[in-house]
Formats: sequence, structure tokens, C-alpha cells
Amino acid sequence: MNYNFAERVSQMESSVIREILKVTERPEVISFAGGLPAPELFPIKEIKEAFCEVLEGDDPSALQYSTTEGYLPLRGYIAARMREKGVEAGPDNILITNGSQQALDLLAKLFVDPGDVVLVEKPSYLGAIQTFRSYQAGFCPVPTDDQGIDIDALELAIKKQNPKMIYLTPTFKNPTGVTMSLERRRAAADLLGKYGVPLIEDDPYGDLRYSGEPLPPVKSFDDAGRVIYLSTFSKTIAPGLRLGWIVAGRELIRKLVLAKQGTDLHTGTLVQRAVYRYLEKTDVSGHVLAIRREYGRRRDIMLEEMRQNFPEGISWTRPDGGMFLWVTMPEHIDTIQLLERAVEENVAYVPGAPFYTDREGLNTMRLNFSNSTPHQIKSGIRRLARLFASCLH
Amino acid sequence: MNYNFAERVSQMESSVIREILKVTERPEVISFAGGLPAPELFPIKEIKEAFCEVLEGDDPSALQYSTTEGYLPLRGYIAARMREKGVEAGPDNILITNGSQQALDLLAKLFVDPGDVVLVEKPSYLGAIQTFRSYQAGFCPVPTDDQGIDIDALELAIKKQNPKMIYLTPTFKNPTGVTMSLERRRAAADLLGKYGVPLIEDDPYGDLRYSGEPLPPVKSFDDAGRVIYLSTFSKTIAPGLRLGWIVAGRELIRKLVLAKQGTDLHTGTLVQRAVYRYLEKTDVSGHVLAIRREYGRRRDIMLEEMRQNFPEGISWTRPDGGMFLWVTMPEHIDTIQLLERAVEENVAYVPGAPFYTDREGLNTMRLNFSNSTPHQIKSGIRRLARLFASCLH
Repeated sequence: MNYNFAERVSQMESSVIREILKVTERPEVISFAGGLPAPELFPIKEIKEAFCEVLEGDDPSALQYSTTEGYLPLRGYIAARMREKGVEAGPDNILITNGSQQALDLLAKLFVDPGDVVLVEKPSYLGAIQTFRSYQAGFCPVPTDDQGIDIDALELAIKKQNPKMIYLTPTFKNPTGVTMSLERRRAAADLLGKYGVPLIEDDPYGDLRYSGEPLPPVKSFDDAGRVIYLSTFSKTIAPGLRLGWIVAGRELIRKLVLAKQGTDLHTGTLVQRAVYRYLEKTDVSGHVLAIRREYGRRRDIMLEEMRQNFPEGISWTRPDGGMFLWVTMPEHIDTIQLLERAVEENVAYVPGAPFYTDREGLNTMRLNFSNSTPHQIKSGIRRLARLFASCLH
Repeated sequence: MNYNFAERVSQMESSVIREILKVTERPEVISFAGGLPAPELFPIKEIKEAFCEVLEGDDPSALQYSTTEGYLPLRGYIAARMREKGVEAGPDNILITNGSQQALDLLAKLFVDPGDVVLVEKPSYLGAIQTFRSYQAGFCPVPTDDQGIDIDALELAIKKQNPKMIYLTPTFKNPTGVTMSLERRRAAADLLGKYGVPLIEDDPYGDLRYSGEPLPPVKSFDDAGRVIYLSTFSKTIAPGLRLGWIVAGRELIRKLVLAKQGTDLHTGTLVQRAVYRYLEKTDVSGHVLAIRREYGRRRDIMLEEMRQNFPEGISWTRPDGGMFLWVTMPEHIDTIQLLERAVEENVAYVPGAPFYTDREGLNTMRLNFSNSTPHQIKSGIRRLARLFASCLH
């Protein structure tokens, strides 16, 4: 039957990433396409203990309805971690969400009227683009280089486009792995004060650094109170728990609470209590260090294999952290077309075009290095290298 | 600082229910205001075992990202239960959501453009009204009586208002506890086919029947494929898990999956697996029977106390199931004003007005009987009776 959908539905497209994940479920395919953490590093035993302990005894409150804001001790823990990063925050500045993706949805719901312009990096996170698009946003993509977003171009875009908000992933950005420099973080925060534009700082990967020095979040320079900071436990504990958070001023948190009430009442009580229990009793920084060591090793192996095997004419980023790097092919190569051949060769990546809002990036691709073993990385990069060589010569 | 919010934000109001819940957290207050199930009936031990078993061993997949549609065996289990209720459904007709509230949000996102009219019962579930309102819907409230929605008035409203959708809670409705008759269920389904309007059948309480014969869902008469059925594990297992589902045609489920991708990627992997494990190994119908016995007892005690103690001039519903009943005071009584005095007397209810979209029902209130012990119900009803007597004489 035919439904008479709302106008915004015409903007909802099936996620290229998810469609590709379906294709690459065959076990013989080495997939660099997904954005999955390494499941062998999940702290299963500790998570299990945390759930068991929360449900031990007769207290049923972990299974009852709870407040929309989220579990107070968990918000307190997150606020303390934010203060360690130089961000002034208390529990009232935190809203618990079902992963960062819900944070993006709630912010789009709160800010975006049809036709409103959102400034995004070029390229930017596909999932954010899709969410803003579903609220009928328009986009102004701002150029980036190996130091992050171009600040002059950002200021020009703010002046010309009068954007409703800016969306940035300053640290180990999905999809390129690039990190915004300290100087540009300060400069971006200054622009927000000057022009009064809110900025979403999406930081799912900040704790996953394998080289270089940690940088403070843009939010730590946010004297004007314009930065809305997002992060998640998906990369440091496990994504199947669906736990993320928003850090913002109290007034904005109150509005977000209203939006979340109508969206799903609250995030699961049990999962919040169990994750708090896990955080409280586990050596979390030791666990994150183990993830960083292993992902850093995988990044190094991927970069070394690429250096040894990729033909000339191809360039790529060398991220200091995160889960992705970004490959740029010669201009005449269409990586969407090439993907079919790659899958025939039992290797997969994500074509770069969906990370752009303006039909660019046809010759780019994103590779994930966190979810494949060192052996798979070596084999997969060699398969890609053979494919690239065959289409470049 | 001032934010330039989207237009829809002007429609987002703080939930009266939640604000009242805050006031009534004092332990001396007997609250009939919430919509909470009885926590002492939660199957804590069995839920704990289910979580532990899913996390037993080395399989980390319960903590990994998973598909937006939901865990396939859980969808299969739900489809089988729907078939027992006379609804043809397979796993592809099911989408797992974060409680029914998310189902309402996703449907509003998919169907409601600003100004679209949603037909609702008079009165209707506050949480649904708020969600539709946050997408800038208009409302057409349709009269109801003790057999549910008035079918002639419904047909007239469809013809006059050209609604985008109809929202009904046919069984043990929140807030009144009233159930739609079999005849009207058939008649409503016929109207949908005749006028091509989609109907949301919200059925969170259907399994909680304490007297009378079970009735098939409207969806079971849905030859035209117009009914979108919602339910939840919040009332039969526990609400803090946040697990609900949508039953609809495959095409619509695919659109809902797109909407949910942008909203939160997917519902928690672990919680879905654990609830499926619980359902698989537990005597679920025995557990639900225990809930029905206890809630039925509480309903009977509340009705008997009201009969014995409430002054003349007050009427109320006698529901066959669910968690609520509905009190109508003489017309000159404003239950919002009265609430302050009730809270002074350490007893609370929800005023009826927020369940109306047209500023009616000022002399009505909702009472919950599932979340108080028999002793509390007796004391609380006597407190209310004294208060009512004092303002009627």
C-alpha cells in the first residue's frame, strides 16, 4: 500500500555503510568498511560482573522507569572526566543518550528547521549528515587540510551562510582520521563567541590516541558557552550497550531533556547502572591503554603494508588515533564503481562520496583498521594493492 | 545564552506527569500519579540469569553493534506472539524500539508534517500527544464512551479533517482504563480500508486483563494493511529495559528502519539478547498471570474503597485491566488546583486536562492502582475521599 509520508522522508536514504556491511558478511571477505571496534577487546567478564552485581539482591530499581536526564552517579562520573579534559561541568551539564547518534538526533530536532544551513567539514561523518538531512537541513561544506578545518573558510562561511549550527569532529575524525590543531581549536572557539553560532563537537574517538600529544577539546576554550560536546562509551567499552552523552549548558540540557522525553522517555536504567558499576570498579584507563596499544599496532601495520604495496599515485592520511584512515586515488578512479571489483576480490572499504554533501570525493575511500586482525590487515591491503595496480596500469 | 531553536521547540512542554513525579518523591506521599508497574513483581532473578548467560563464555557479539531492525530471534518470538493474537506477522514485520515511546516518535517523524491533523481519542495518552505535538501536528479529538471511540464521530472526523493518521489505545486505555468493544474494533478497521487512513494501535496493557474476555487487536481485522501495532515489554517484564516493538507491513518497516538508523542506529544488542533469553527459558505466561492476579486485587481494593468512601457527585471508570482508572468530579472542581491541596494531604494523582488536546477535562483525574500496595491504596483513597468531601460541602 502507499503511504502519504512527511516531506522529510524524501531525505532519508538507506545508509551506504549498512548496505555494504550486509554484502561483506561473507566470512571470506576482509572488510575495512565497517566502523566496528575489535570485539576481542570488549571487557566481557567485567561487564557481566557489573550487570550481575547491579541485579544482585532485592533492589528492583535498576529495572524501573527512571529520569530522562540519566543516572545521577553516571552523570557525576562523566562530569569529573570532562573536568580532567579542561571542561567545566557538573552532573547538571550532562544528558545520557542512546549512543552519540541519538545526541545528534536530539540536537537536530532542537535546532533544525527545514532549509536551515549546517556547516560541516569536507568530508564529514556520514551518520551526522544523514541525521541533519532527515530534518531537511541544507549544508555548507567547509574545506579541511591536515590540520583540520580551514579557519578562514569557516569564518567566511559563517558570515555568508548564517548557519544554524556547526558540526565538527576535531579529533581523529571519521572518515579521514585527521586531528584539528591546538591553534585552530582556539580560533574556532573565538569565532563562536564572535558570531554567536552553536557548535557540535563530536568526540567519539578522543581517548584512542596512539601517537602525538593529547589536545584539549574545543569545548575547553568555550568561554561563550557555544560548544555542545558529544561522546560515547561505544569505542572504549562496547557499542552494543548504546550509551553516549551530551555536555552543554544547563538551559540547553533542560531543552534536550524535553526532546528526549518525547523521543524515548529515558535511556535504559539497568544499562546505565551496570556501566557505572563497571567504571567504578574497573581499571578503566588500563583497559583503554590496552585498546590503544592494539589499535596503534594495527594502524602501524596497515600504514606499513600500504607503504610497501600501494602503487604510485595514491595518497593517504596517517592518523594519530581513532579507527580510520583515508585514501585518495587518482582523480579518474571512481571508488564506488571500484567497490564491486574489490568485493569480488574479497576485500571491502567505504567509498568516500557519501561523506561529502556536494558530490565530491568520488576518488576517495575510508579504511577501518580497528576491526581486522594484523593478519587480515596484511592480506586485505595486499588484495587492495593488486586491485589498485590493475586499474592504474 | 539565547539559542535560536527550531520552530517545533515552541511545542515542547515539560511533561506534567514527570514534574509531579518529582514533587511526590517524598516517602510520606502516596502517589497514584505515576504510570509505574509494581517493582516487587519484576523478575529480577530471572533477568539477572539471562544477562549472565548471554555474557557467559567468549562470544563478544552481544556487546557489538547490530542491525537496526533488531535481534532476529526476538523478532521471531514477537511475531509468533502476534500470530497467537490473530495478527499475521513474521520477523520482517517487526521493528524493535526503545520502548513504545520511541515507536511513537519514529512514526511521527515518518508521517507528520507541520499542520498535519492526527485524530486522537478524547482523552488520549499524554505521551503520544506530546510526541505528535513536537512534530507540529494539529489534533482532532474524537468523543469516546464506555465502549471506546464513537465510530460515527470517527468517520465524520475522517471525512472532515482528512487526517494524516489516527492514534488509538483500544485496550485498557491510558488514561481512562476503557476498552473498545469488539464491534467497534471491526468497524474501525473497516473505516481504515474505506478511507485509506493509517491507524496506530498502541497496546501496552493488552496482556494485563483481570476480568472479562480477551479481545483481538484492531490489527487482526486489518485486511487493508492500515494498522500499525505497537507494544512493549515494559508492563510484563520491566520498563527500565526500554524494549518495545512495532508491527507493520514490510515496506513501512523498511522506512522505519531508515528513520531509526538516523535516530540511534539500533536498540541495545545486549538487552535484546538477554530479554530473548529470558523469554525463551522462563514461564512467561505464569509470570504475567502473577502480575494480573496482583494488579486485579489492587484494582478491586481501589474500587471498593472508592465505593465506600467517595462522596456523591463523583463518578469513575471500572476497567477490566491495565493500570489506571479515571475519576470525574463535579464540573466546578478544577483538579489542577486541587492537586496542591492533595499533595499537602500526602496523596497525589494526575490531573486529567493534559490528556485532552482542547482544554477540556478540567474536572477529571487519573489514578494508578498498579504501583501502590493494598495498604497504601486504602490509605490514599481515604485521604482523597476526605479532601473531596471537604471541597464538595
